[in-house]
Amino acid sequence: MVMRPEVGGPVKPVVLRRRGSVLERAILDAALEQLSTVGWAGLTMEGVAAGAQTGKAAVYRRWPSKQTLVADALRVSLPEVGEVPDLGSLREDLLSLALRMRDAMYSPGGLALRSVLDECDAEAAGLFHDLILRRVVQPGQQLIKDVVRRGIERGDVRRDATADIVADVVPALMMYRAKLGGREISEADLVETIDHVMVPLLRP
Amino acid sequence: MVMRPEVGGPVKPVVLRRRGSVLERAILDAALEQLSTVGWAGLTMEGVAAGAQTGKAAVYRRWPSKQTLVADALRVSLPEVGEVPDLGSLREDLLSLALRMRDAMYSPGGLALRSVLDECDAEAAGLFHDLILRRVVQPGQQLIKDVVRRGIERGDVRRDATADIVADVVPALMMYRAKLGGREISEADLVETIDHVMVPLLRP
Repeated sequence: MVMRPEVGGPVKPVVLRRRGSVLERAILDAALEQLSTVGWAGLTMEGVAAGAQTGKAAVYRRWPSKQTLVADALRVSLPEVGEVPDLGSLREDLLSLALRMRDAMYSPGGLALRSVLDECDAEAAGLFHDLILRRVVQPGQQLIKDVVRRGIERGDVRRDATADIVADVVPALMMYRAKLGGREISEADLVETIDHVMVPLLRP
Repeated sequence: MVMRPEVGGPVKPVVLRRRGSVLERAILDAALEQLSTVGWAGLTMEGVAAGAQTGKAAVYRRWPSKQTLVADALRVSLPEVGEVPDLGSLREDLLSLALRMRDAMYSPGGLALRSVLDECDAEAAGLFHDLILRRVVQPGQQLIKDVVRRGIERGDVRRDATADIVADVVPALMMYRAKLGGREISEADLVETIDHVMVPLLRP
């Protein structure tokens, strides 16, 4: 039990937990900050502790390794794409969703995730694989499937367009063009994807 | 002029060139071998020289840096996908092409290229970007466009399916699934891509 001399009695657990979660958040923020400045290779537990104005032991007490710390830092910073509003047509729904996915990709959490993946070795990549699947890939697939199902009900999507791979086309083209295009994905790129690939692929 | 004591006269240039190109090939093969064993990070000019049974100076004389050496090693080892025979239908042509692209991806040169991209830093990746565009991306796009144009002439592809992005769908899905699927791309994956994405996208 931790004692605070000025109070002279045991600290209430709720106060300790609040202080704990504030420190935890400061450490995670410092880890993200390190990722954006010195990258995965340059990030050290010492550097993170210094950035969070705490000791190395406070970091290691919560996270046994750089990998687990970075995975948690990414987990809290990755934005939720949220539900897609019904805008009345497949084209508008898909475009709205693709724009949100693009924004998530260029958010601080999204950029940190990509820098980690570009830099880390195969072993560390394996550790982040599950995070990417559960926080990026699967939510994206689910949202696209929601939009497709709504289009089937509305009548502007063919009834047999339910294969899983259909939900991979937009994220796959985004990853491919981000990797090979040498520039940020623009709204025009997404309009092209919707008008020349998704709408012809899905229309009845 | 190099002299061979046993001949006692100047060596004919043609003999020197042949010896030069044989040595060059041995150095490039040793570089590929190093990539497959110790990876991009572990590859050194010394290690390559040892593997090719030559001196470090012989390597540096031809390639001023690890980057230029590896770029040339990849260039000579990447397989050509070649022309796609007319198999009589869009589906068969696309499947034949996708299978060849998959084989190129898992060839020694393709695997070496991917390991380099996974490991090297952003600066080195920039140096390989041009190589990838000219030897992998653009030839693949051209072959898909050839298949689409043939389909338009044959009548099993709609006449307006000529947007550049249409040629990116198969390679984008291959890259996405190779990156996130955690396993090799199978023939069944490619059949799914053709039957659930490309044929519905392209049919009249």
